[in-house]
Amino acid sequence: MSWIVRESGFDPEQIAHHGNKFMVGNGVLGYRGTLEEFGKSELTATIVAGLYDKVGEQWREPVNAPNGLATTVYWEGTPLSVLEAGPRVGAGGGGGGPELVAHEQSLDLRRALHQRRSVFRMADGAEVTMTSERFCSAARSELIVCRLSIESSRDGELTIVTGIDGDVWDINGPHLERMESESDATGEAVSLTAWTQELGLPLTVAEAADIVGEGRGELVREETSICRRFHINSRAGEPVELVKYVAIFSGQDGAPVGDVRTAAVKSAAVARQLGYDRLLREHADRWERKWDASDMTIEGDEEAQLALRYSMYQLHIIAPDRSERVSIPARGLSGQVYKGAVFWDTEMFMLSFFLHTEPEVARNLMMYRVHTLDGAKRKAAEYGYDGAFYAWESQETGDDACTLFNVNDVFTGRPMRTYFRDKQVHISADVAYGIWQYYAFTGDVSLLLDGGAEVAWECAKFFYSYGYFNPRKRRYEILDVTGPDEYHERVNNNAFTNRMVKACLRVAMDAMEILRDRDLRRYEALLAESTVSPDQIRDMHDRLYVPQPDAESGLIEQFDRYYALEDVSLPDLKARMLHPHEYLGGGNGPATTTQILKQADVVLMLHLFKGDYDRSVKQANWAYYEPRTEHGSSLSACIYAMVAADTGSPDWGYPYFMRTATIDLTGESKQYVGDLYIGGTHPAANGGAWMAAILGFAGLRYDGNKAVLRPALPSAWQAMEFPVRLRGGSYRIRVSREEVAIFAQAGNPEPMRLVVGDLELSVAPGHDVCVPYVR
Amino acid sequence: MSWIVRESGFDPEQIAHHGNKFMVGNGVLGYRGTLEEFGKSELTATIVAGLYDKVGEQWREPVNAPNGLATTVYWEGTPLSVLEAGPRVGAGGGGGGPELVAHEQSLDLRRALHQRRSVFRMADGAEVTMTSERFCSAARSELIVCRLSIESSRDGELTIVTGIDGDVWDINGPHLERMESESDATGEAVSLTAWTQELGLPLTVAEAADIVGEGRGELVREETSICRRFHINSRAGEPVELVKYVAIFSGQDGAPVGDVRTAAVKSAAVARQLGYDRLLREHADRWERKWDASDMTIEGDEEAQLALRYSMYQLHIIAPDRSERVSIPARGLSGQVYKGAVFWDTEMFMLSFFLHTEPEVARNLMMYRVHTLDGAKRKAAEYGYDGAFYAWESQETGDDACTLFNVNDVFTGRPMRTYFRDKQVHISADVAYGIWQYYAFTGDVSLLLDGGAEVAWECAKFFYSYGYFNPRKRRYEILDVTGPDEYHERVNNNAFTNRMVKACLRVAMDAMEILRDRDLRRYEALLAESTVSPDQIRDMHDRLYVPQPDAESGLIEQFDRYYALEDVSLPDLKARMLHPHEYLGGGNGPATTTQILKQADVVLMLHLFKGDYDRSVKQANWAYYEPRTEHGSSLSACIYAMVAADTGSPDWGYPYFMRTATIDLTGESKQYVGDLYIGGTHPAANGGAWMAAILGFAGLRYDGNKAVLRPALPSAWQAMEFPVRLRGGSYRIRVSREEVAIFAQAGNPEPMRLVVGDLELSVAPGHDVCVPYVR
Repeated sequence: MSWIVRESGFDPEQIAHHGNKFMVGNGVLGYRGTLEEFGKSELTATIVAGLYDKVGEQWREPVNAPNGLATTVYWEGTPLSVLEAGPRVGAGGGGGGPELVAHEQSLDLRRALHQRRSVFRMADGAEVTMTSERFCSAARSELIVCRLSIESSRDGELTIVTGIDGDVWDINGPHLERMESESDATGEAVSLTAWTQELGLPLTVAEAADIVGEGRGELVREETSICRRFHINSRAGEPVELVKYVAIFSGQDGAPVGDVRTAAVKSAAVARQLGYDRLLREHADRWERKWDASDMTIEGDEEAQLALRYSMYQLHIIAPDRSERVSIPARGLSGQVYKGAVFWDTEMFMLSFFLHTEPEVARNLMMYRVHTLDGAKRKAAEYGYDGAFYAWESQETGDDACTLFNVNDVFTGRPMRTYFRDKQVHISADVAYGIWQYYAFTGDVSLLLDGGAEVAWECAKFFYSYGYFNPRKRRYEILDVTGPDEYHERVNNNAFTNRMVKACLRVAMDAMEILRDRDLRRYEALLAESTVSPDQIRDMHDRLYVPQPDAESGLIEQFDRYYALEDVSLPDLKARMLHPHEYLGGGNGPATTTQILKQADVVLMLHLFKGDYDRSVKQANWAYYEPRTEHGSSLSACIYAMVAADTGSPDWGYPYFMRTATIDLTGESKQYVGDLYIGGTHPAANGGAWMAAILGFAGLRYDGNKAVLRPALPSAWQAMEFPVRLRGGSYRIRVSREEVAIFAQAGNPEPMRLVVGDLELSVAPGHDVCVPYVR
Repeated sequence: MSWIVRESGFDPEQIAHHGNKFMVGNGVLGYRGTLEEFGKSELTATIVAGLYDKVGEQWREPVNAPNGLATTVYWEGTPLSVLEAGPRVGAGGGGGGPELVAHEQSLDLRRALHQRRSVFRMADGAEVTMTSERFCSAARSELIVCRLSIESSRDGELTIVTGIDGDVWDINGPHLERMESESDATGEAVSLTAWTQELGLPLTVAEAADIVGEGRGELVREETSICRRFHINSRAGEPVELVKYVAIFSGQDGAPVGDVRTAAVKSAAVARQLGYDRLLREHADRWERKWDASDMTIEGDEEAQLALRYSMYQLHIIAPDRSERVSIPARGLSGQVYKGAVFWDTEMFMLSFFLHTEPEVARNLMMYRVHTLDGAKRKAAEYGYDGAFYAWESQETGDDACTLFNVNDVFTGRPMRTYFRDKQVHISADVAYGIWQYYAFTGDVSLLLDGGAEVAWECAKFFYSYGYFNPRKRRYEILDVTGPDEYHERVNNNAFTNRMVKACLRVAMDAMEILRDRDLRRYEALLAESTVSPDQIRDMHDRLYVPQPDAESGLIEQFDRYYALEDVSLPDLKARMLHPHEYLGGGNGPATTTQILKQADVVLMLHLFKGDYDRSVKQANWAYYEPRTEHGSSLSACIYAMVAADTGSPDWGYPYFMRTATIDLTGESKQYVGDLYIGGTHPAANGGAWMAAILGFAGLRYDGNKAVLRPALPSAWQAMEFPVRLRGGSYRIRVSREEVAIFAQAGNPEPMRLVVGDLELSVAPGHDVCVPYVR
């Protein structure tokens, strides 16, 4: 139970949403939850992680590979397509199109299996049922497998056209040119090879398809596709089954086209040899292990239970568990939105999940930042700064894909200058923070030695060159930045940013000390090429201004002179909007001159540095900023949920938690900013939902030394139970309304220090403890 | 010759323009160049310098006093009004309105006398000629005098309704309430008294009118007016003459209403006793002295000659020669545009004229800044800074009248946030610069001792608190400012601003030394209450970053990363405009992301600090910035004219000079920004025209020690001759195409050091020298 996500009926308005909702993926490939008969208009997409292309002066974005699952089935010449079918009511629409009697699309989260079932009533009275299953193999990163079955109530002729369709959806494409189709000597597999425009990288999609007893079919080659056509005499009640084994390889690591093509064709052929059942089994086994490491149970709240699982599912299907060269884009692998770029979302909203459940993935995510350090250095140099200024929108090289104009003005149609790229400097601090988090959670210094310390040091150098000293106030300040609240660009002393910079400077100092102890030569080399000394970094750290809570009200001003802005209510602000997609920020946005914020900013700081602030401060700021937050970003709600739990008001946080956890289930998120489509999946919210549950309601906090548990369960929750990994040890934690229980695995390397309330305990390997707690 | 400005014919489209063009004034009162029969729709206005009012949350602006010249003349019941008259062609329009046979409006610059002559042909065939003269007495600051004469070609009945009309034009009014009309016991004078809304200050307009032999007429009182009606049997060929003596007093200096009213009535009565001719004579005498001190002759260019005189006329009529409590607003006394506020225009564009011709007025202008220091301190404190941050739009208290929203977006109708008030910090440096200029030109330390040194010190303190130290580059920087080029708000290290700040710091140090020597107690008191030491100011001065010319190109970057902006041509930029009044700056303005500038910025710096830069640098920057300048401000053209002359290319500068010098003659200036009306006179351009001629083409430069003359006359100019006053000495300078001649008045206190080319001379009192020069 609570493993199945299902939608019945077909609504063309939901095609884009369901494409996100029913996605499958394996961290290397993402395949949108579209139906077999869909094409580019329905936003089919096969996204290859880390493969980007740029056409002319358009935005650089991920490559959408040719669709290897493209299949159209005809009954007596009439296509079995939900797009052509009329609804059941008002039976048998005009034009002889079939009637859609039943339709269902579902996702089996446990096995990461997409399923579909459609029943068509044809003009001739025949009822034809089409079912399919598909998965993106967790065991073979290049492989997508699909099984399609058609069964009719009468005898009749089925035509199945299946193959690879290179005419794909692109936002700023087309990205692939010079399409070459091939059918191998044995006729077992067909393939389509093409090249990216910018870098000329080859990409091959190979497909081996089987219809038992139907041979190879008839080859149909068009300019951008290669398919086979099967004509089958279908007998009533006897299903016809098509299995497609689709393998995708690219030259993104430098492989020449010959190797790419050969590998793809071979992989498809091998998969066909192994067969559907065996491939599904090895895939499901992998998923069983993922869930063992991460699944949580919520007692008393089925809806939350499913939403949380679903959130974790979304993270698992895009987690780079095989590569440290890619990270997770802001829209996962669901398409080309936001340029397929990696934002701060990864470090701030997704990393926690992996740190607690799959630290190997967390390491990959952070190593991606190490590998893209050169890009960050180039960006800093471009703006005249030292060190590393990480890309606001990072792709495979770390050069910033973020453009200076990101939103079009709905009134004039003109591109609007935004300062995401130039001024959201906290990204470099976020990266350093993430690196240190990995070290704190795992105790593994390898990341620091393999470049992590250097990244932190370069980020600190960047901030030293970005910062200024205020001679009158005798303090360093961070000026002219955009914080998480992007509705207020170019502000001074954004509390969150300054606090993150301070953390970055601290991380740099600590990481450099570790480097000095472990790799003196590298340490000395870094200092030798640096214009800044550790003493200067320390001085900046010690004298950096971080806005503090007001002594009376406890409020922390989001940035200099934030309070001087108009204090309008959110409904009043929205009433001023003249266009539904109007961007609230930018040069003249209605929110810019008001206190309305896009997303948690001060409150995010209170979450990240929760140990530094009293409950009364957290409460005061939550109460102040919550009504002023527009939640224009999907990153916002989970933070409010967590801080509400942290201040002992989980029921205030619960609606925010649910909003976060269901974002990709309901599809209720902003789809447009200006005239820019921003739909897709929301991995940061998926990660945020997990954080809200574990770090918020369960109240788990780990600082590298000890775990603190301060549960605050929402009213409906009787208990929650979940696994975590901390410093190489595996634990199961169960939080009920009265007590906390921890089970430490026998093989754990060391006891865990645990604090619950006033009690501090040690949980030895193989032991468990159970502690009552009082809220 | 070249003393008369004249327009023939009547065009209703030109009413607003002619209201500016034909203004009269005396520095205390400004009366727009409207006709006697005009009312609020034709923008009649009587502006009282320094009297402001604010209604509700609307903009604070000058008070428009009741119109004491309001007069309507009827011939046989038909009004003699250009507004009701048809044109001559198509004779005798419908509805029985008169035909306007001839119409002329003119200004006698020498005597500052407005004249008008209109000939109406009436329906009954009578030709009625109305002539009038008016002046705003230079001798009696409260007085406006008008003489109206009507002569008809036939006998007939004339009705004259004349008095005071309180229903006046207001942009953000009405400002006057509780109107009380009175007729004094003798019936000689009538008056209208009212109170400003914000401060409740009384204002009285009193009028004594004479029509020889017609007695007192019949009193007509309405709610907002008081008039007298005269019925006169007019004889053919015998002019009927009305003289109006209008006196205006207000309680702006604290006088109670009784005193105000009494003074006004008495003044009008006294004026009536003295009579028109005597009043005109004393007025004209004053003007003769003004012209003696300032008039310049241009040989070979009549058009320039008139335009220059006219420019000086405009400055003279608004010069505060009696008060150090007011300065000159950006639109002079021509109305309520720009809130009647004083901008940097005064110090940077008008001060030179007065420094060279009427240093007493220059002192008043700078003492106005001393008197408004408290307002500047309040503004600095409001923003969390030390010292004095002068108002961007200054009124009588020095508090900033500049609003945060100054322009409406033409696309949405919404107010647009601009940063004139917050970020145009150069204003404080401009003020300090002006103070030092006064000292340099006059040698008079009294301004410094009377508060000028304190102003400079407080401005320096402000910049010390505003500035930042860049720890990596080891220098002070001035961040987040708007320079003169308001299309680029919130930039870092604007070259002009940084250079001005450096000058301000220097002025503060030098002024404080003078104060120490002359008034040690005041000096010590200032230091005692200061958080900043002179050493800190010196350190900032010495290590302040000022963008320097590139070693190769000679170019100076206008601000950090200006070169990174799109380098679009001005026509291409204009082609992008979607609305004729679209504001090019602001949050999303089309110019903001390009290199197109509103007005001279770097080039202005090259003018102000011309001694610091090589000719090649000036040439390179002129050539670079000139095509990129939109001249959206009337302050821009004169600067390009001057720097062109300075680099030896006066003919490149000449069109810019003429554009500046004729701006109020032609009316060719921006009338709208967004939906904001910005018409009125342009004193900064008037001052700029003078500067372009004397400092540009004659090439006069005075640094307090010696005068340098580097003439560069435009091709058409054979010679120019003008008086100047320097350090208490009076000189006449004549520049011809080959030589320079200087005549020093016998009473001069000391010889003047003069540099022409390589030659340095001394010109003793009572002597003259004549020096050839080579260009």
